[in-house]
Amino acid sequence: MRPQDIITKKRDGERLSREEIFSFIKGVTHESWADYQVTALIMAMFINELDADEQASLTQAMLDSGEVLDFSDIEKPIADKHSTGGVGDKTSLLIAPIAASCGVAVPMISGRGLGHTGGTLDKLESIEGYNVRLSTVKFKQVINKCGYAMAGQTAEIAPADKKIYALRDATATVPSIPLIVASIMSKKLAEGLDALILDVKTGSGAFMQEFDDAKKLVEALVKTGNSCGVKTQALITDMNQPLGKYVGNSLEVYECIKILRSEIDEQMQPTLELSIELTARILKMTGVSNSIKNAKLKIQSCLENGKALEKFRQNIELQNGNPEICDKPEILFSKDLFKFAIKAKSSGFINKIMTSEIGLAISEIGGGRQKAEDSIDHFVGYVCEVKLGDEIKFGKNLGILYCRNEKQANLISEKIQNAYKISSKKPAELKLIKTVIE
Amino acid sequence: MRPQDIITKKRDGERLSREEIFSFIKGVTHESWADYQVTALIMAMFINELDADEQASLTQAMLDSGEVLDFSDIEKPIADKHSTGGVGDKTSLLIAPIAASCGVAVPMISGRGLGHTGGTLDKLESIEGYNVRLSTVKFKQVINKCGYAMAGQTAEIAPADKKIYALRDATATVPSIPLIVASIMSKKLAEGLDALILDVKTGSGAFMQEFDDAKKLVEALVKTGNSCGVKTQALITDMNQPLGKYVGNSLEVYECIKILRSEIDEQMQPTLELSIELTARILKMTGVSNSIKNAKLKIQSCLENGKALEKFRQNIELQNGNPEICDKPEILFSKDLFKFAIKAKSSGFINKIMTSEIGLAISEIGGGRQKAEDSIDHFVGYVCEVKLGDEIKFGKNLGILYCRNEKQANLISEKIQNAYKISSKKPAELKLIKTVIE
Repeated sequence: MRPQDIITKKRDGERLSREEIFSFIKGVTHESWADYQVTALIMAMFINELDADEQASLTQAMLDSGEVLDFSDIEKPIADKHSTGGVGDKTSLLIAPIAASCGVAVPMISGRGLGHTGGTLDKLESIEGYNVRLSTVKFKQVINKCGYAMAGQTAEIAPADKKIYALRDATATVPSIPLIVASIMSKKLAEGLDALILDVKTGSGAFMQEFDDAKKLVEALVKTGNSCGVKTQALITDMNQPLGKYVGNSLEVYECIKILRSEIDEQMQPTLELSIELTARILKMTGVSNSIKNAKLKIQSCLENGKALEKFRQNIELQNGNPEICDKPEILFSKDLFKFAIKAKSSGFINKIMTSEIGLAISEIGGGRQKAEDSIDHFVGYVCEVKLGDEIKFGKNLGILYCRNEKQANLISEKIQNAYKISSKKPAELKLIKTVIE
Repeated sequence: MRPQDIITKKRDGERLSREEIFSFIKGVTHESWADYQVTALIMAMFINELDADEQASLTQAMLDSGEVLDFSDIEKPIADKHSTGGVGDKTSLLIAPIAASCGVAVPMISGRGLGHTGGTLDKLESIEGYNVRLSTVKFKQVINKCGYAMAGQTAEIAPADKKIYALRDATATVPSIPLIVASIMSKKLAEGLDALILDVKTGSGAFMQEFDDAKKLVEALVKTGNSCGVKTQALITDMNQPLGKYVGNSLEVYECIKILRSEIDEQMQPTLELSIELTARILKMTGVSNSIKNAKLKIQSCLENGKALEKFRQNIELQNGNPEICDKPEILFSKDLFKFAIKAKSSGFINKIMTSEIGLAISEIGGGRQKAEDSIDHFVGYVCEVKLGDEIKFGKNLGILYCRNEKQANLISEKIQNAYKISSKKPAELKLIKTVIE
């Protein structure tokens, strides 16, 4: 099949066959398609869209372009979570050990932070010694021993996705639902899952700020997952404020350990709530629990009896990290940190938080990346002391900035302060879980 | 301006500003845009189209990417013709000397044949010694001396077009009106013209087989030409049968010399008719004649008094060709040719001719190119002995194939024979000139 003929069909808004889509992805993987042909087709796909069958074929072809993990020797059900990313979203670090403690194996392949959002791998690397570069063999060994493993994407998994993503980034074709779906799902399906729970964020700290866009994406993701033979459900959740109490790599690990140790405070509550919601659906989908209610009871008991914390500790040991943090989480704070209080500029209710601005500010002092090749400072971050709807007096703390020196504080403190809109009007209450799509 | 931002706008169907289009073409010329970014934008332009302003900006930007010929030292009006190409279309070889003999300077930059259509440069090169590779200086000298010159496109003229055309060919984005317009007009406008006449073909031997498509293209070409300050008119003409008597490079030169020598027969009549129509519009647009009627009288007189033939002879001499062909045109026939009569398979009226099939058949035995890098045999060709609507008896000649040997005749004679549909019904008469767009 000639690239031109396949491009012509999509250019003219026709449906591509499964064979044509596989021929395209084979061409990308084996470089028989020139990059300029790939981007012409990608643009035609962006504008003329893909239907459900084409989307499933594209996902399957990208999945088949690389290695698929084989867990047939593991007797437990295999499941994972994927989030579209936000600010302070550390639920992966809780869901994996909780699900593992309930009897589900979790092969979690994660990414790094970019722009205003954080990445699970960066958070894990704030644990001294923790190794996220695992071979496939080692990855499976860790899962076999403690029920879950966390690692970065290897070159063997969905190589076509890696190449296409770089080209999309350079040609303004990133925000296309079918292309996002194929990119996310080809990587997740390579994990050989029985079930997948998706957490699609919407609001001021999410990539998709509009609920309707998020809903379209979620429906496509769930449909594609199920059509590829993986039980898939999704939550659309609120990202109009940082999730939980802490933002920043080591601070977020600290929050997770505090939750696993049941040393929780009110600011951390949403992190726990969302982690339980997501994990409960994993337990229900995999048949470990027969209802969401029973799943939540099981999760509560694994948190209370310390089994989830035990899984977390085992995993850190198996991935060469320092397990001492489980007993003394405060060692995650660098002694060199300069703490700076961000204060309210007026009195009133917290009416709106421009969440991505907070993420970008922390990124600016090294807490995240502006470009993929940037290195990061794991210890800087921000502690949220108020939530949307809270009443605050002029000059009282909105939160505490953890940075390296006064210069950094001067650079970004005003940006964080300005991210909070304070008004005399109390805002309508926001639900953390907006919709469940099964 | 970032390529991504420009691509985003056209991707979303927005109008690109003149600055954005110039930035794109500058990026192509100076290679600051990657090829994969160029094709992404081209595909977005193909699908979401360009309005008249964008089309004019794109044409102007492509024109400005290279050299524009300066004829300010020539006192005559400057004009040219462009045809979208067909089978047996040799009018350029007549229009240039006729217009020159009437006092118009013609700087004709032409192309080579590809697929089923012929190219003016290939025809000229069937004249022994004729040189189509002229420097800009030499090109102008020849025009100064005999009133016209014929050459290929140099690297200096519209280099962005050359690059974009190659990418369009590989990404199925050739048949887009705004892109065709910019490609044609940027090259023609680089000739520094006062007037341009366009001949857009429609029918079984044309690129645009449908009249409505041809009409859309013509309107865009005429509008763009005029908005760029060149008086532009167009004819839509019939290409449902080869134009005139001969198809094939040296045979077509022969037909032109016979016409310039007033040794014309009925089969050649359409070639003369169309050449006069096109030239008359050049004379009218440049103000050399005050009406089409007077222009035609002037042309007739230059043909009859031998002035047009004299220009043709002078030009051949100036471009190093053998002028003897003007006196003995039969030396254009190679002595080695194998002549093979193509006979009617049934009796009746010539109802339809699949003209591109004839062009492709001649191309197959070396008369044209399948790929741009193919070399050609200038001497093979085909002599048409019947026209649409003629009545023919079974076994009588449709035409004569001029080829190299019996093997070639066996290869393509049936294809030519099958290109003629003979029926008991006389077809409706076809007008050679379908529409004039001013």
